[in-house]
Amino acid sequence: MEKFMIIGERIHCISPVIRKALAERDPEPILKRAKEQLDAGAHYIDFNIGPAERDGEEVMSWGVKMLQSELNNVPLALDTANRKAIEAGLKVYNNTYGKAIINSADAGPRMGLIEVAAEYDAKVIGLCANEGIPRDNDERMGYCQEILEKALTLGLDPTDVLFDPLCLVIKGMQEKQMEVLEAIRMMTEMGLLTTGGLSNVSNGCPKHLRPVLDSNFAAMAIANGFSSAIVNPCDELLMQTIKTCDIINGASLYADSYLEISEGAFSYNV
Amino acid sequence: MEKFMIIGERIHCISPVIRKALAERDPEPILKRAKEQLDAGAHYIDFNIGPAERDGEEVMSWGVKMLQSELNNVPLALDTANRKAIEAGLKVYNNTYGKAIINSADAGPRMGLIEVAAEYDAKVIGLCANEGIPRDNDERMGYCQEILEKALTLGLDPTDVLFDPLCLVIKGMQEKQMEVLEAIRMMTEMGLLTTGGLSNVSNGCPKHLRPVLDSNFAAMAIANGFSSAIVNPCDELLMQTIKTCDIINGASLYADSYLEISEGAFSYNV
Repeated sequence: MEKFMIIGERIHCISPVIRKALAERDPEPILKRAKEQLDAGAHYIDFNIGPAERDGEEVMSWGVKMLQSELNNVPLALDTANRKAIEAGLKVYNNTYGKAIINSADAGPRMGLIEVAAEYDAKVIGLCANEGIPRDNDERMGYCQEILEKALTLGLDPTDVLFDPLCLVIKGMQEKQMEVLEAIRMMTEMGLLTTGGLSNVSNGCPKHLRPVLDSNFAAMAIANGFSSAIVNPCDELLMQTIKTCDIINGASLYADSYLEISEGAFSYNV
Repeated sequence: MEKFMIIGERIHCISPVIRKALAERDPEPILKRAKEQLDAGAHYIDFNIGPAERDGEEVMSWGVKMLQSELNNVPLALDTANRKAIEAGLKVYNNTYGKAIINSADAGPRMGLIEVAAEYDAKVIGLCANEGIPRDNDERMGYCQEILEKALTLGLDPTDVLFDPLCLVIKGMQEKQMEVLEAIRMMTEMGLLTTGGLSNVSNGCPKHLRPVLDSNFAAMAIANGFSSAIVNPCDELLMQTIKTCDIINGASLYADSYLEISEGAFSYNV
């Protein structure tokens, strides 16, 4: 059993601090958040620059070079809908400690990003959706199959694709939660790797409930084979859950001190 | 999806307070712990009198009558290896709010307690073990099958048996945890109800880790269909997990206040 892979979500252009730093090409606020997430146990850092239609290529290549040169070639997820910006980032990406992850392709208009992954030897998140939310698991698994076939046709290894079942908000789509968990199980039984935006689950819930909902959903998802997620690694309850599930499923060796250890977190300061 | 059923474990003769109260037939300490557990959300109260070889019949019938007369005929699990004591308890048990649960039969020397369940119209926990710990899931599921066949032959409904896969200690049997979770899934897929002594999981671990290990194991087990457990309902992290899993799997309706509500807890003070 592999350890659960943690992709840190906190460098996101929706944050005013990050948005400003991106606009001003100011490394410090971005590096600060990257380090906080790595210290908390992240294995990958997501670098989200938003739609970035104007200067996406420049921002992405600047960010990738800056983060990797300052942080020992930290592995990154390149996160934007702008394909040219993804390509610009991949051109300067150093994969010494892990391939870049493209965040994300889907079974609709963003299918082309699977080609980009094949061209640049990157991994890619495959969102099992076309436009909108899949009606049910027949539709979800159909998209999963389309993405898988496309990836295999292009010569990608199945493990280069992280299949995202699309985690849904409990408040409003409570009745869909078991379906998402079941999709994770089906994908796992197909031998596929999975990922997802875990905080979707608790979107709109009171602040004190969000870590509780996210972490319990995570434990249930990991029981079904969920292999990674895009999360806030500074959420202590969630990290406690991920580390504990790694113990229960045997991915980490039990020690009384296991919660204090961030086994597998990326070492940026060597 | 049914709500997860919580059997409160805190009236146990291993506790010096309870042992003394049982010896002196002193209701107060026992009632105090029963109320605490019901207030915390328990659906059933386990009444464990130990081997009770000398005066088991008298202690069990005293305890059942006392708890039920003081607490609105609270549903009880009668917990002892002494078959005559179980029978004495069942003779005075009032099943207005739920059948008694016999804790527990097994596939070995305690198979006879399934007959007692049939005779007295009780439920029974079926520990999927003979003598010692099952070597693997082939053996575990074999015992499950033996218990099921015995119960059906005697005219019990399959839902009158709560199958216990035997939760094992992480510290020493880490590599067995996924097997137990898988057994829960197999039993669930057979349409069976399951239960278990959850605190076995964290036995011998540092005190601050026990709720963390137990609650994450619970979430993973519930994802596999685990339908009840014998637990300490006063463990806040565990109860938070159980309530949240009930939300995720749709057994409880989401409300922002769901953690403050003990939906389905037994009302003893009406």
